Amino acid sequence: MMTAFETRSTHACFGGVQGFYQHQSSVIGLPMRFAVYQPPQAQQGKVPVLFYLAGLTCNEETFAIKAGAQRLAADYGLMIVTMDTSPRGAGITGEADAWDFGVGAGFYVDATQEPWSKNYRMESYVTQELRELILRHFPADDSKVGIFGHSMGGHGALVLALRHPELYQSVSAFAPIAAPSQCPWGQKAFSHYLGDNQQTWRAYDATALIEDGKKAPPILIDQGLNDQFLANQLYPELLEAACQQHGQSLNLRRHENYDHGYYFISSFMADHLAHHVRCLMV
Amino acid sequence: MMTAFETRSTHACFGGVQGFYQHQSSVIGLPMRFAVYQPPQAQQGKVPVLFYLAGLTCNEETFAIKAGAQRLAADYGLMIVTMDTSPRGAGITGEADAWDFGVGAGFYVDATQEPWSKNYRMESYVTQELRELILRHFPADDSKVGIFGHSMGGHGALVLALRHPELYQSVSAFAPIAAPSQCPWGQKAFSHYLGDNQQTWRAYDATALIEDGKKAPPILIDQGLNDQFLANQLYPELLEAACQQHGQSLNLRRHENYDHGYYFISSFMADHLAHHVRCLMV
Repeated sequence: MMTAFETRSTHACFGGVQGFYQHQSSVIGLPMRFAVYQPPQAQQGKVPVLFYLAGLTCNEETFAIKAGAQRLAADYGLMIVTMDTSPRGAGITGEADAWDFGVGAGFYVDATQEPWSKNYRMESYVTQELRELILRHFPADDSKVGIFGHSMGGHGALVLALRHPELYQSVSAFAPIAAPSQCPWGQKAFSHYLGDNQQTWRAYDATALIEDGKKAPPILIDQGLNDQFLANQLYPELLEAACQQHGQSLNLRRHENYDHGYYFISSFMADHLAHHVRCLMV
Repeated sequence: MMTAFETRSTHACFGGVQGFYQHQSSVIGLPMRFAVYQPPQAQQGKVPVLFYLAGLTCNEETFAIKAGAQRLAADYGLMIVTMDTSPRGAGITGEADAWDFGVGAGFYVDATQEPWSKNYRMESYVTQELRELILRHFPADDSKVGIFGHSMGGHGALVLALRHPELYQSVSAFAPIAAPSQCPWGQKAFSHYLGDNQQTWRAYDATALIEDGKKAPPILIDQGLNDQFLANQLYPELLEAACQQHGQSLNLRRHENYDHGYYFISSFMADHLAHHVRCLMV
């Protein structure tokens, strides 16, 4: 019998355990790495679980190292799962040439275009294979599952919450790519992963999904106003307009001085975990 | 007129500013990098300041990224200063060949032996040049200065507090190299930096300094019992015995399961900052 996953390392942390793992992903067709913070309460039984989706160039370790969330997760009794941001080792020519496409930039979509469609299937990985692995092998409560993320991962969290409302009971994002069909990062990724027909892009664009009638749990978004990518890549104002027009609950908070990085993310982490707890505990 | 330092980057963080800086150090004879977290209270006037000394292989960024201390520093109104762990670019043959000696491993001593004595002068850098730069250019209260650190930096914090009691009103350490004269890391470093006469090593060995009658403010030390370096490099029990025998206040706490890394450090950061606040606010 094959082992479901191997443990790369574990570290005691705020009374719980921060662990790093690897498994052979059947959806991706390659080894994938993920990380889980188990709060102390997980020793007593199942706890709510949040999936965090990281941004461009990050991996499964970034959040655990930089976000400062374990203390709060230990207080609330939340498990937090993170994963890599793309397949690694697919061997596609040019996949590692750019920091905003290919390796480290899977955009949380299931690619439909060759040669990406074989391995670049991050939507199915996050919503099916990794989710099922976590629910089977870790003490996570399958009725209390949230999703959040940053930048490309903020886009991923919003899109997966809108596409799979039955899977996620809470959602939030830090500085998400809120209308990827309309920004250079998203256009580059979607044209390669999804093809040139921009109608197909709408299924992976949070703003378009809301325009097309999809609904998610109440959304919390924090956005720094000193974010170097705000003007040309993120477009939260387009998401805001769509939410207003279509009755989607959105709390979009804009913060003077804050930039796009983890010093910003960590500063508002407490509010995000509190938001998820409020949504999950009803 | 020369600028005292240049700003490499600043980031809004918990209402304050995490900044990264560089200057031409006259003590080291090379450019040196440091980082400062300024809490929101620093906008109103001078605040207490802690100097944090990092461990082997780390640099001025490590603490800011991994320790999760800014939230607490913002709550308490503490400035936190970190610096690189050695000169970089001295050009000494072999200085970058080992991770536990030379580059990234200055051990917070002033080297007396050629070729190290020209640049490897981290004690004077921390206690004089960087301290004076901070007190002159940042809103730090020179009557409320603490020092703490991890591993090699825990050694540094203890030794500098014992050697310069007039400079530091509070001290603590995470998993310090508590008796460097007696462990492989310390013996390697001291024999090169200080020479073969082990009597000279006592001046940079916290346990020996206490045996020789030096006193520091009440010491807090946290030590993980799953620390891979505990048995052969750290020797907190030797420091504990010296403190008991010589009346030095020491609160040495041992923690099941915790290891040597920043998941351990961040778990007990709140207790360390509270300890410094208690000592500095009397």
